[in-house]
Amino acid sequence: MLWSKSFIFTSKETPQEAEVRSHQLMLRACLIKKISTGVYAYLPLGLRVLRKVKEIIREEMHRAGAQELLLSTLQPFSIWKRSGRDTVLGKVMISFINRHGKRMVLGPTHEEIITELVAQRVKSYKDLPLILYQIQSKFRDEIRPRYGVIRGCEFTMKDAYSFDRDEDGLQENYQRMIEVYTRIFSRCGLSHCQMREADSEMMGGKSSHEFVLSLASGEEIELGHIFKLGTKYSEIFGGVYLDREGKQKPIVMGCYGIGVDRIIAACIEKHSDEHGIIWPISLSPFKVLIIPLGGSKQIEDYAFSVYQRLEKENIEVLLDDRQESAGVKFNDADLIGIPLRIIIGERNFAQGKVEINLRKGGKVQVDKERLVGKVQEMVNGEV
Amino acid sequence: MLWSKSFIFTSKETPQEAEVRSHQLMLRACLIKKISTGVYAYLPLGLRVLRKVKEIIREEMHRAGAQELLLSTLQPFSIWKRSGRDTVLGKVMISFINRHGKRMVLGPTHEEIITELVAQRVKSYKDLPLILYQIQSKFRDEIRPRYGVIRGCEFTMKDAYSFDRDEDGLQENYQRMIEVYTRIFSRCGLSHCQMREADSEMMGGKSSHEFVLSLASGEEIELGHIFKLGTKYSEIFGGVYLDREGKQKPIVMGCYGIGVDRIIAACIEKHSDEHGIIWPISLSPFKVLIIPLGGSKQIEDYAFSVYQRLEKENIEVLLDDRQESAGVKFNDADLIGIPLRIIIGERNFAQGKVEINLRKGGKVQVDKERLVGKVQEMVNGEV
Repeated sequence: MLWSKSFIFTSKETPQEAEVRSHQLMLRACLIKKISTGVYAYLPLGLRVLRKVKEIIREEMHRAGAQELLLSTLQPFSIWKRSGRDTVLGKVMISFINRHGKRMVLGPTHEEIITELVAQRVKSYKDLPLILYQIQSKFRDEIRPRYGVIRGCEFTMKDAYSFDRDEDGLQENYQRMIEVYTRIFSRCGLSHCQMREADSEMMGGKSSHEFVLSLASGEEIELGHIFKLGTKYSEIFGGVYLDREGKQKPIVMGCYGIGVDRIIAACIEKHSDEHGIIWPISLSPFKVLIIPLGGSKQIEDYAFSVYQRLEKENIEVLLDDRQESAGVKFNDADLIGIPLRIIIGERNFAQGKVEINLRKGGKVQVDKERLVGKVQEMVNGEV
Repeated sequence: MLWSKSFIFTSKETPQEAEVRSHQLMLRACLIKKISTGVYAYLPLGLRVLRKVKEIIREEMHRAGAQELLLSTLQPFSIWKRSGRDTVLGKVMISFINRHGKRMVLGPTHEEIITELVAQRVKSYKDLPLILYQIQSKFRDEIRPRYGVIRGCEFTMKDAYSFDRDEDGLQENYQRMIEVYTRIFSRCGLSHCQMREADSEMMGGKSSHEFVLSLASGEEIELGHIFKLGTKYSEIFGGVYLDREGKQKPIVMGCYGIGVDRIIAACIEKHSDEHGIIWPISLSPFKVLIIPLGGSKQIEDYAFSVYQRLEKENIEVLLDDRQESAGVKFNDADLIGIPLRIIIGERNFAQGKVEINLRKGGKVQVDKERLVGKVQEMVNGEV
């Protein structure tokens, strides 16, 4: 991508309302835009990061044998009456009455909907176990939305649900999901995320664990939460199966959530400094940023040829082809946080050299001719 | 994927409410589930198709230089007041008052939001042209939802917006989008889709074209709609830029929608028979279905080894490892419509042969040893 044609408009000012660093940097680096209180749009640079997190989650869920589906946002209110959770969620739940007089809810979570779905399809022990999941926008009318995408009214969640024959099966899937979560957080640069026992009030299950991260501000904001639901929902929605002996039994359930936007914010909280973001290569919107300086035709042509060769090698690359000063380019590069920068300066270039400069610190000079090979090596070695 | 572990529960019964073939087949083949009137969930098999359509759209939009973002579903009602479209959309618009007393809308379309976004960022002629798009759920309180995903209250739309310096620029991007649409529809098996001039009332633009398809039922459902908006929205939201002479000018806009779910339904309307769906390979949830018959250990082992080798070659394959009769397996295969079927029957197998059977008609016998190579050849040649 050429910067001059990209929708990347950085900002020097720190928005007053943004209290935590991730919120400030996401706004300043043009990752997100505030639409309303607790409601954000992902701009092109931010969406590239969001899609990377989603793909990591998909790969790890798939590896664990989970199947992806996509439930609707709209749900009939009646299903919440049935589970009795209309009162548990209370004012957090957003609803409206449609033109046919039916009250509809904007899904804050999907236990009711998915239990009803599985109850209608699963008949036999042969149909179990089963793990289903989705990555979808959820809606909650938060009393105090804050910290940008960390506590919003509209947010992206990965919610998974396991369906087992018995407690042993649930225990096995629960353990499997703990391993999946550990891998996901580690791949997203959050290997310091900690698991601990938690309250399971809202879900009404038997026990639960949450995955939390301590922020510099001293707060803890929650990345994932997993619950042993047991048979609570399957009993309400008729989720039963026939076992080997032909005896009817309730399906034993678990549910497993990850706040997808929170992974991004947490990653920035962990990987940033006073100048901007320091993306781990796994989540970075581009792997390489090329910064030509001085504006000579020779340097411009060389920068463009490197850009084309990296694109051909399927290495995501951004070329800062703007007519801006070195200062502006360096500041923006530090702000948006692409891990690997190729700096093509006049003095080095005259001596046949180019600098590879890492956002996290460290640099190396290489011969012009050896640049692309060296960059490939570093990207494949994950820098 | 092994069928025995998949969430694919087919049904023989045609649901009474489903009037058109695509709706009937999407329900029977376990692609979707009705959640409420006009509201559907995509089940794992259906989501695989949905994701393929989205990827085709992304590839073609990207090729045209468009950048993807993700606007929010929630929008402040005030922005609709400003454009005056609150009255144009009327009861179709879904809204609610949040706990802070602010009226919020569930986005039925995003011209207002995106114009405000671009107006805040774009300052100079150098920032233009620009094409932004998203693939997102939209919400409309339809008076008469029908035909399954064809006319729903919650649906997936690709909406793109172009921003140009002048009418000539708009004309160029408009023409580019027509080419993009032609490629998208053609890749989705809908090359017979026709473009024609249309009404542009709701958008309030200057002129528009729609892409329509005639159904067997005699109806025409609309797959895409593109509009020359001109300066209507940029004038309302202050979307101006400074031209080369430093003169302030309004940005000239176009907008371009595609009904993503409708592509799936239209594809099924076009590519199906009385037994089920006949997927083009581009949209098919799996490229290959392996059907072992008879239940001998030898055949089961061979089927599984073919399955593993195709997976290794990154060919999406479903193995029907269920303990079901040949009749059930064949009927389900015809219903779910995977284009290429490998049938491993006892008599053929004893003679060292396997049958490759095409859902659209035609079959060929191949030596067991040559099977994988032949399948690869056919898949790469797009059957």
